[in-house]
Amino acid sequence: MDKNILGNNIVVQVGILVNDIEKSTQEFADFLGMENPGWEITATRDKAETEYMGKPSDARAKLAFFKVGGQLSIELIEPDKEPSTWRADLDKYGECVHHLAFNIQGMKEKIAVLEANGMKLLQKGEYTGGRYAYIDAKETLKTVIELLEND
Amino acid sequence: MDKNILGNNIVVQVGILVNDIEKSTQEFADFLGMENPGWEITATRDKAETEYMGKPSDARAKLAFFKVGGQLSIELIEPDKEPSTWRADLDKYGECVHHLAFNIQGMKEKIAVLEANGMKLLQKGEYTGGRYAYIDAKETLKTVIELLEND
Repeated sequence: MDKNILGNNIVVQVGILVNDIEKSTQEFADFLGMENPGWEITATRDKAETEYMGKPSDARAKLAFFKVGGQLSIELIEPDKEPSTWRADLDKYGECVHHLAFNIQGMKEKIAVLEANGMKLLQKGEYTGGRYAYIDAKETLKTVIELLEND
Repeated sequence: MDKNILGNNIVVQVGILVNDIEKSTQEFADFLGMENPGWEITATRDKAETEYMGKPSDARAKLAFFKVGGQLSIELIEPDKEPSTWRADLDKYGECVHHLAFNIQGMKEKIAVLEANGMKLLQKGEYTGGRYAYIDAKETLKTVIELLEND
């Protein structure tokens, strides 16, 4: 494997798939002793430009975030039924940890190098102020990783 | 659920089950752009006082640690074949994220409150300078959590 592909080794997010964002957000808030942060929903396809396995997808997800360290957040994810890595893994594995996220710069180049190293792009999309990509790193890193590029 | 059971909401560890600690430690080191930290093995039962599902167990694991944030480490875990939450989950789910860890004080009291809240003790043991407990929080938090008490 090429070394230091991301140019960054700080994990900023643990993403967790859930079936019921309302219920899980309250339970995490109670457990962590934090305010319920509420949830938001990802943008529609025209804005998010969501692609899953190389094809446009209408997939959206409800998201809730908890700060659990200086740089680290837990992200709860309740996906809808449209094709996505979230839905595929929730159907395959049930509710569980889905990904670890890293901040990067240069999304296209990073994806190209990861793919050259056998780590395939699963899904990508845009959000306000940046973009994300999910990479299948199950074989080497035993999980999906998410790249986050904030402008 | 009782609120703020741990009195702490900082995640200090993401534990990942692997089949081959040598191979995975090198792959994580390469990916993260870090030195290979090597691995260590947990103590034998007489020192570790390992219990799994309420019974003494000879289980041991090879561990490797990577600092991936101010307070956060990734812990790779290659368990042996003896009964443990590591072995059970590796057999059931394959290589994957196993737990999120939190530092706590007052291990017995914390375990009692967690159990009163439906989160069952899976495994516990001692290490030099402290002790750990794994708790089944799959139903509420969608993962195993680990309590770490350092003296």
